[in-house]
Formats: sequence, structure tokens, C-alpha cells
Amino acid sequence: MKLKQLVAATLAIGITSTTLAQVIGKQEDQIRWRQSAYHTMAWSMGRIKANVEGTYNKDQVVEAANVIQAIANSKMGTLYQQGSDKGKGWKETRLKAEFFKPENKDELGKVAGGFNKEANEMAKVAAAGDAGAVKAQFGKLGEACKACHDKFRQEDDKK
Amino acid sequence: MKLKQLVAATLAIGITSTTLAQVIGKQEDQIRWRQSAYHTMAWSMGRIKANVEGTYNKDQVVEAANVIQAIANSKMGTLYQQGSDKGKGWKETRLKAEFFKPENKDELGKVAGGFNKEANEMAKVAAAGDAGAVKAQFGKLGEACKACHDKFRQEDDKK
Repeated sequence: MKLKQLVAATLAIGITSTTLAQVIGKQEDQIRWRQSAYHTMAWSMGRIKANVEGTYNKDQVVEAANVIQAIANSKMGTLYQQGSDKGKGWKETRLKAEFFKPENKDELGKVAGGFNKEANEMAKVAAAGDAGAVKAQFGKLGEACKACHDKFRQEDDKK
Repeated sequence: MKLKQLVAATLAIGITSTTLAQVIGKQEDQIRWRQSAYHTMAWSMGRIKANVEGTYNKDQVVEAANVIQAIANSKMGTLYQQGSDKGKGWKETRLKAEFFKPENKDELGKVAGGFNKEANEMAKVAAAGDAGAVKAQFGKLGEACKACHDKFRQEDDKK
């Protein structure tokens, strides 16, 4: 990482550069942590889907929605350091170079913010416990995931 | 999965067998989801560690503690179906056969419950924001993780 980026990242997440390396890790760590977090959310999305399509169990939906919400609010942006559109975590990253292009900054902020909003709303709706409302919000959350995938993720696994 | 196990698991998590397969997935899914969830928690533990050892940022610690708490409360037990001490998710599982032995059931309940308790306490202490208390609770949570690793996880990666 270049010094300028390091300083910028340090300021952005508000910690000293001594501890920064521990938080964001090496590039392979960043990619593996990202992939882990997304798969944990995918498991949770699958749990909600099974509930809205089958027998509804409020506790399960709340548990799954809380996982998605907590991860969505965990500032995963720090795991997207420059250059990490190439490299391997558990597998090759599917992140597109478009992610880092300055002209896409506004759209990135929009899709990231949209995902956060829908994830927070999902947790609220799950806690309220209305199965119909959960189904509707699950659809919105899925769309928010897709908005980012469509723009910033390779369609096929490079493996 | 044998019918008896399927029925037992169905009753335990309170959903119909139609949706069960979607929730617990195939064995390789279970193992990959487990590994993903633990790595997401490991990232979060690393974030807390960096804060208690470096400059303390309350928001970061809260975010990380909330991720650990949400995953700890997500009933990951459903991802430990019989026979899943062998198999590959992102990599070979390190789960020991001891996990499924009836004579270890009480100890398993104890270590799992201990982890849940300390994870919930970690989120509370993080929200309160006292760096010293967070450091102490981080130690307790680490011990709770280790208690399970010592008994039920292979020491070395089989890769």
C-alpha cells in the first residue's frame, strides 16, 4: 500500500497506522474476510428465504436478519484496499476493477448505502414478525445485493 | 442424512422437512458456512484486539462485537449435522469426531453456552464503551473460543 493511501485509510477509520495493519490485514486476508462475510450473509439470506417460502419461524428470521444487519454495519469498506480486485482469499476475488474507478465513486456510495438501509430495515421488520412484510423486505434486500453484484462483481467465478 | 436424524433436526429447529434442506444445505455447504462464520468472527476479534492494544475507537469495537454477538446467537448448531467432521467447505474441516460423541454432549453444551454468554457480554461491554472493561471481556471471550477449539477442533489445518 502506498503511503498516501495508508494515511487516507488511517484517517478514514480513525486509528493509528500501528494498528491499521492488524485491522485490514494483508490483501489475501481482506479478500478472505470479505468472502467469509458475504457467505455468512448468503447463509442468512437462505434461512430467511426458507422461512418466507415454508413454515415461518420468527426466531430464525430474527437471528438471520441480525447477522446480516451486524455485518452490513461493520464498515467492510476497509477490506477494499486499492489493488484488491486481484488476488485470492478462499478463492479468486470476483471484484471488478470498476470498484476503484473515481467515476464510479458516487454509484458505489449509492449501492453501499442502499444495502445498509435495506439490511437495517430487514432487522426491524423481522423483529416485528409479520411474515408478509418480511417477504416484501426480503425482496428489497435481495435487490440491494444485486445492485452491487451487477455493477461491481464478475458474473462467473474465476475459480 | 438418515431419516431419524432428519426428523430429530427438524424438531430441534422447528421447521418442516421441506424447508430444512434449504436451511442446513448439503454437507459441503454446512462446512463452508461454518468456516465463513468463524472467519468473520476472527476478523471481528482482530478488530477488537487492535483497538484494545492501540488507539481505542468505540464505534469500531461496537461494530465488531455486534457481528460476533449476532453470529453467536444464530443457532449454528444446525450446521453440524452428523458426519460433518469429515468433508471440505473452503478447506477440509478441522472438526473432531469427538463433537458427535454422546459422552461429550454435556461438555459441548457447556462450551457452546459459555461462548454465547461471553459474546453477549462482549456486545454489552462494547456499547458501554469502557476500554479497560472491553479488554478484560475480550480476554474472557477469547478463552471461551479456545475452550471449544481445545476440545473439538484439530490443532493443525489438514489443508
